[in-house]
Amino acid sequence: MTRIVVDAMGSDNYPTPDVEGAVLAAREYGVEVILVGDESKIKPILDEAYARAGGATLPIRIVHAPEMLTMEDKGVALALKARRPNAKNSMAVGMDLVKNGEADAFITMGNTGACLATAYFRLGTLTGVDLPTLAVAFPSATGSFILVDLGANPDCKAENLLQFAIMGSLYAEKVRGVNNPKIGLVSNGEEEGKGNALVKASIPLLKTSGLNYIGCVEGKEVFGGSVDVAVMDGFTGNVFLKASEAVAKLLTDKIRETITSGGLLTKIGGMLIKPAMSGVRKFLDPSEYGAATLLGVNGLVFIGHGRSDARAVQVAVRVAKEACEANLLGAMKSAIEESLKK
Amino acid sequence: MTRIVVDAMGSDNYPTPDVEGAVLAAREYGVEVILVGDESKIKPILDEAYARAGGATLPIRIVHAPEMLTMEDKGVALALKARRPNAKNSMAVGMDLVKNGEADAFITMGNTGACLATAYFRLGTLTGVDLPTLAVAFPSATGSFILVDLGANPDCKAENLLQFAIMGSLYAEKVRGVNNPKIGLVSNGEEEGKGNALVKASIPLLKTSGLNYIGCVEGKEVFGGSVDVAVMDGFTGNVFLKASEAVAKLLTDKIRETITSGGLLTKIGGMLIKPAMSGVRKFLDPSEYGAATLLGVNGLVFIGHGRSDARAVQVAVRVAKEACEANLLGAMKSAIEESLKK
Repeated sequence: MTRIVVDAMGSDNYPTPDVEGAVLAAREYGVEVILVGDESKIKPILDEAYARAGGATLPIRIVHAPEMLTMEDKGVALALKARRPNAKNSMAVGMDLVKNGEADAFITMGNTGACLATAYFRLGTLTGVDLPTLAVAFPSATGSFILVDLGANPDCKAENLLQFAIMGSLYAEKVRGVNNPKIGLVSNGEEEGKGNALVKASIPLLKTSGLNYIGCVEGKEVFGGSVDVAVMDGFTGNVFLKASEAVAKLLTDKIRETITSGGLLTKIGGMLIKPAMSGVRKFLDPSEYGAATLLGVNGLVFIGHGRSDARAVQVAVRVAKEACEANLLGAMKSAIEESLKK
Repeated sequence: MTRIVVDAMGSDNYPTPDVEGAVLAAREYGVEVILVGDESKIKPILDEAYARAGGATLPIRIVHAPEMLTMEDKGVALALKARRPNAKNSMAVGMDLVKNGEADAFITMGNTGACLATAYFRLGTLTGVDLPTLAVAFPSATGSFILVDLGANPDCKAENLLQFAIMGSLYAEKVRGVNNPKIGLVSNGEEEGKGNALVKASIPLLKTSGLNYIGCVEGKEVFGGSVDVAVMDGFTGNVFLKASEAVAKLLTDKIRETITSGGLLTKIGGMLIKPAMSGVRKFLDPSEYGAATLLGVNGLVFIGHGRSDARAVQVAVRVAKEACEANLLGAMKSAIEESLKK
């Protein structure tokens, strides 16, 4: 049975969504969940969830971690907390379980920077990887694409983008089942003459990478479904994702407002399309497309939105389970070894 | 009467949308339009438009330009064409009219790079401006915001971002009528510790700029209406805009698909909300929010989408007219002189 650690102290409203999401996941996906965090806070929520389900328990256990990392943790102080061998915060304790082979993957809805630092120091990077990268699956017209880097590395070199592309391609292939994933480099135009200095330096590396590199792409190709992996530096990737989420929200809000402020016929129309529209809303809902995956560290690590609810935590567990079952880490290790031999 | 040059050879389907848009604008906004381009191609379309309107003519004249710049024009060859004193392409001829005081503004739906090069060489940059910038007004939850830089400068320094902010602020104030415009620096997080090297270097400059700088912002603040000017380097700005447009299209397509593939009640609901929905579609339609403005050159220059239809060309003329009437160029010159004195 796949064993997944959930940081109970991660989400903005911790530990309720984290614990309830873990319960939903354990019930739905047949995984073992290990909740790390303050046991005195976790246990009552878990007991209540069991009571609601008529007392039946699930394969969930609590590993006590008396401390936690918050949004306030940054810089050198964070690095020290992340490194300390006997660290007692929930991220360190949870990732140590993965490192020691007691669990298969780690999930948190907490501080991304804190999670990255903890993963770098406690799990280490895979041989051959200079910078690990955050990848996320995002919906497109034809299904989904993988966006790398989502924000782990705001400043990148061309070699980093090449490695992001390699890791993103492996993720698309192994976890999402995409055959020979199409890789696009996001730029300010499809023509090769466009691009900033980083893009221009990355093009020759991607062309000779052996990847299925299809060239420079813009938003319309990415969301239109022309690529399986959209490669960007972490600054651009983060801006890209957040702009996309914000536009989706603006548009759905605008539609709701238009319908509720409309005449009677418009309101009736709005009621009639409501069930169909919930599918559209789900389509671009962050809690539906799941957590981001940290690729390039020696362990499976997933990071979700701080605003995650129980449903989003549940979906993150599903994403983690799929990565475990696809042996993403093993595939990543051997593929990177292969590419180093070249 | 405001005199506006429209490059008749600009749009992908030139010269029909360009000429028809000019006719709509001359009729609607009381401006004089000067169409530059191949007279033998322009005249039949103009005559047809007049015939359709019962023969009544408008203050539109044609200035013949036998050559044109296309998407194929780039690099040094483009620079030479853009510079040549006796250049006969429509962009050069049109911008010379502005330079010589025979027109107040220039509009093209053509090759952005070609337009930038022609503007740099023929109009020159304003004293004190290192890099001119492309600004565009984009809709938000509360109205609109100005995005600078939209893609004129893929690689920027902090000093450039500061100048973009100053020019964007002036544009928001003078043309859009915003009092003390709120300036946001787009970053991968609102916290100051976030950002790439460029953002980190730009923060202290913006803080001491005397502008109404409100800090680092993400997509949700920008589209939520928290800023009047969103500042980015041209690479990020272009990716931001194109991702936003692509998501809006994906979502509206998805809604249409959901409704047409739905059951009878959903289809009826779809018909009932159709009139209301057209407002939402217009809301994020590039042809409705108009052309981008090139700020920092010594003349008013506007660049629209190549895919523009007549309606988009018409809106571009309206945007240009507003800038002329607000004396954007004069305000820009004196404000930049002021800021140089500090």
